[in-house]
Amino acid sequence: MSDEALTYASAGVDIEQAEQSLRGVTEAIKQTHGDNVVGGIGSFGAMYNASFGDMARPILVSSIDGVGTKTKIAAMVGDYSGIGHDIVNHCVNDILCQGAKPLFFLDYFGCSRLDAAAFHQVVTGAADACKAVGCSLVGGETAEMPGVYVDGEIDVVGSIVGVVDSARRLPRPKAKAGDKLVGIASNGLHTNGYSLARRAFFEVGGLSVRDPLPDGDGETIGEALLRPHLSYFEAVYPLLQETEAVFAAAHITGGGIYGNLPRVLPSDLNATIYRSNWTPLPVFTAIQVLGQVPDVEMYRTFNMGIGMVLVVDSESVPMVLGHLNTAGVHAAEIGDLQDGTADVQIV
Amino acid sequence: MSDEALTYASAGVDIEQAEQSLRGVTEAIKQTHGDNVVGGIGSFGAMYNASFGDMARPILVSSIDGVGTKTKIAAMVGDYSGIGHDIVNHCVNDILCQGAKPLFFLDYFGCSRLDAAAFHQVVTGAADACKAVGCSLVGGETAEMPGVYVDGEIDVVGSIVGVVDSARRLPRPKAKAGDKLVGIASNGLHTNGYSLARRAFFEVGGLSVRDPLPDGDGETIGEALLRPHLSYFEAVYPLLQETEAVFAAAHITGGGIYGNLPRVLPSDLNATIYRSNWTPLPVFTAIQVLGQVPDVEMYRTFNMGIGMVLVVDSESVPMVLGHLNTAGVHAAEIGDLQDGTADVQIV
Repeated sequence: MSDEALTYASAGVDIEQAEQSLRGVTEAIKQTHGDNVVGGIGSFGAMYNASFGDMARPILVSSIDGVGTKTKIAAMVGDYSGIGHDIVNHCVNDILCQGAKPLFFLDYFGCSRLDAAAFHQVVTGAADACKAVGCSLVGGETAEMPGVYVDGEIDVVGSIVGVVDSARRLPRPKAKAGDKLVGIASNGLHTNGYSLARRAFFEVGGLSVRDPLPDGDGETIGEALLRPHLSYFEAVYPLLQETEAVFAAAHITGGGIYGNLPRVLPSDLNATIYRSNWTPLPVFTAIQVLGQVPDVEMYRTFNMGIGMVLVVDSESVPMVLGHLNTAGVHAAEIGDLQDGTADVQIV
Repeated sequence: MSDEALTYASAGVDIEQAEQSLRGVTEAIKQTHGDNVVGGIGSFGAMYNASFGDMARPILVSSIDGVGTKTKIAAMVGDYSGIGHDIVNHCVNDILCQGAKPLFFLDYFGCSRLDAAAFHQVVTGAADACKAVGCSLVGGETAEMPGVYVDGEIDVVGSIVGVVDSARRLPRPKAKAGDKLVGIASNGLHTNGYSLARRAFFEVGGLSVRDPLPDGDGETIGEALLRPHLSYFEAVYPLLQETEAVFAAAHITGGGIYGNLPRVLPSDLNATIYRSNWTPLPVFTAIQVLGQVPDVEMYRTFNMGIGMVLVVDSESVPMVLGHLNTAGVHAAEIGDLQDGTADVQIV
């Protein structure tokens, strides 16, 4: 064996360091495991009891997603503590649009070289977010890919599986002209539009993450951009279980209201959104002003302050708003449905 | 609106191109959908019937994984046609180690800018691989992340959910001293060890993907490195359903036999592997010679020609080998178990 003998570690992949990092998050992961997780950590496949005794016709609902270039903001600020919440809550909200409650979650952490501190923050954050919604973090993968990822950058992907009883699944085939649209407030960009936001703040605007956000009440740009994606499960799921008032739910992610609301609209209905019914957060105004971004482009890229839109029977709007606004989120009527062709107008 | 107005596309993220690419693979994806897929493509959450009528106590088995820097070889050769097979079969083999059959799969395609041809090859390949094992490709996500991924590079992640009846799940608590280890042949690196392989071939060896593989029967280095990860489901699953002969299965991935066999060994048994029982493929020999890689490092990084190891009751070995070798894979007895401490010796 000469001095030049290659090893996997010398080629940029340190399996032992990865295993050590994993041991550091084992306790947080285990705390998300309820009675339905079978076996421990480290199996080739994670096991979860498929027992949905109270459901007449259970349907598994799944989704996979990433947090996009929000990771670049985390790298700039040096704070990855919200990224695990971002990926879990993004996935939780996605399957909530089918009416599902989360069962289990798996994470993927891709990078050039493993940054142990970033990994620890992301995975413990994901475990916390899972625990908050009764979801078990059952598996994950860490990949060191020198030459694929830019040095110092990471990608975080998550996959979730939930369940809904068929009779309770969304969208219900009940939406009709005259129904109202209820918007639930986001707290920022959530996990979409970061490439455009970075261009506006840092390239066009010449600002840094440490600069104060214009009209941001002292908050820095970094803080505003890193606010973790909100989970709407705790506020919305009881409403779906206890009432028949919600006909559909749209998670406002990439593509904004224009791209996401039509995914749950019947093909013979249009939606009209009244912008005057809410005030966009300062972070969106700042991006638009700095980047001279056209209105339509803003609403096609960002959630603009509305993280989820519910289609609600008009008579039930007061009940729905009452429920949501006492359940930890801010909700308002922001639009309605008309006869049409699944088109969305924002006026 | 001035000439300098920012758009999401000008910031490097082209949602319309992504949607167009998705339409190009819709037909291939639909062909993987059987009766259990509820609803179409494009929902926030993918829906799959949780009906396992023939199972007394169904357990969901899940896994998430990536293909590692095999994507860099695909980029060098300009051929992504095997990468979809790689990620699906990697996941299928992982949950097979718990005895599970695949139900549904979700893919994630991360990149700097979307390469429509690469995306099409990866997703249609994944659909083909899903179809081959009766798995439904129910969801996916495409992420353009300029500044996180190196230009021209991609990451491919997959998540799978399968099911096993509790009475049939692996490992069974029956393994004992004297049991035999049956190795099933791989066809190359599958999806592990590519950083070390690239270093050996291209940096130390100064070779290119178009050069012939030493002792490779005319195969190029690129062809040898891109051979798709084999699926062992078709050969192994019937054996698990129809017999009680297999006590455990280990998928030989990152960490090699040393890292993966102990994951399914009882804590009071050792395993001894006899290297003389098989001949490593030429691709491993070439890497070892070029990189002067120590033996232990080779077996700790690569599968060395053994893609899966089964723990088998010694009396059943002839039956198991007979079944496997007529079911499209190559299998041989490669070791046995002794009293010990979950240690693996390769002699």
